[in-house]
Amino acid sequence: MFSNIRIVLVETSHPGNIGGVARAMKNMCLENLYLVNPVNFPNSEATSRASGADDVLGKAIVCQSLDEALQECNLVLGASARSQRYISWPQVDSRQCGELVASNVHKEQVAIVFGRENSGLSNEELERCHYLVNIPCNPEFSSLNIAAAVQVICSEIFQTVRQVDEIEKADEVEYATASDMDRFYSHLEQTLIEVEFLNSAHPHKLMRRLRRLFNRARPDKRELNTLRGILTEVNKKTKI
Amino acid sequence: MFSNIRIVLVETSHPGNIGGVARAMKNMCLENLYLVNPVNFPNSEATSRASGADDVLGKAIVCQSLDEALQECNLVLGASARSQRYISWPQVDSRQCGELVASNVHKEQVAIVFGRENSGLSNEELERCHYLVNIPCNPEFSSLNIAAAVQVICSEIFQTVRQVDEIEKADEVEYATASDMDRFYSHLEQTLIEVEFLNSAHPHKLMRRLRRLFNRARPDKRELNTLRGILTEVNKKTKI
Repeated sequence: MFSNIRIVLVETSHPGNIGGVARAMKNMCLENLYLVNPVNFPNSEATSRASGADDVLGKAIVCQSLDEALQECNLVLGASARSQRYISWPQVDSRQCGELVASNVHKEQVAIVFGRENSGLSNEELERCHYLVNIPCNPEFSSLNIAAAVQVICSEIFQTVRQVDEIEKADEVEYATASDMDRFYSHLEQTLIEVEFLNSAHPHKLMRRLRRLFNRARPDKRELNTLRGILTEVNKKTKI
Repeated sequence: MFSNIRIVLVETSHPGNIGGVARAMKNMCLENLYLVNPVNFPNSEATSRASGADDVLGKAIVCQSLDEALQECNLVLGASARSQRYISWPQVDSRQCGELVASNVHKEQVAIVFGRENSGLSNEELERCHYLVNIPCNPEFSSLNIAAAVQVICSEIFQTVRQVDEIEKADEVEYATASDMDRFYSHLEQTLIEVEFLNSAHPHKLMRRLRRLFNRARPDKRELNTLRGILTEVNKKTKI
């Protein structure tokens, strides 16, 4: 899945940043790096900052144009500080970017494009993108280091792809059913009366609040068994 | 609000990384940087990598010990690669860290501690933390550059604080703080030992499961008072 995602850097000046990007990518399971006219690459500073992600650098593809780097991609996102000039272009923030990528990556080739350290992407390059991505940040100091920006966006993608995966597996978690919950609430109410926390004449308001709290946690069957087990021990103690 | 958060770096070796951290912090509206025995600071490489966050570097506080850097903090989180050795310590991932900080930062002083580039935090330093924070990532290549790690965690905090602000303007729920929750968990554990549901020798695994359940529900202060009240009634009964 992660193999369908590529990171594209356009005319990066500092080789250290290319190394930092390679490390950030590999930390988040991404391996496809495309470099459009890098100013200085390969370079020992890139290798040093990659800190072990040399494999990503080693198979990085150097391209002559953005078009060449975007071949076969059907979803292209361009990193961009939030700006007035492109306000009419579809924009997502970094978290939405994660969701967008996670929901497309099974069937599409996805590219995320990062511009020059000083001037970002040109208008013409931005227009090659389906969406612009901005990272929510301090409006007074909004320029992130390029490797840091790649780290944030790749982290959002990693978390969301993994979550989507887990939710698919999690359908195997066996949640408590409504009638399990009803039995638990009866047991809880009875126990609270026994320990004289509840006046048996007016338990409704408090029980409603407790229901709201436990429903929110959505216990699975095993967790509910633990809670029932606790109540049973309390019942034994109060009956002595 | 952001002024209640400090970033603490322990024995950072490379001044460039300190500069990168300062930039990452300022990008996300954080300004309080504490340096515990930095190897090489101040330094021109730090200033150069800060790229305009010189003000953060300029007012960074250099400390002789972690304790000194944590003065007045009531919520301390330590960055840590997920590890077996501390599996029993409360752990959160970077997104949960954002939520935890956002729900406490109005009234607590929060510190997030990052260890040495090569060896992280020592066991003793980890034990000063209420929670360990891990950044979900590639298990085969899990060491992030320290400035990149700060960027990811500060980005999660920034996004969640901003979001919570928006939600709380709509509804003034007062959520339980991390220390309220800690007191509740101690009270719960003590009570479960009293009713002999927990064997006092091995409470960790079960308590961890219960923490996960109640954290998921994210109780407000009033709900937590109700739960504490129930435990108090059970305590009275079991002491008769």
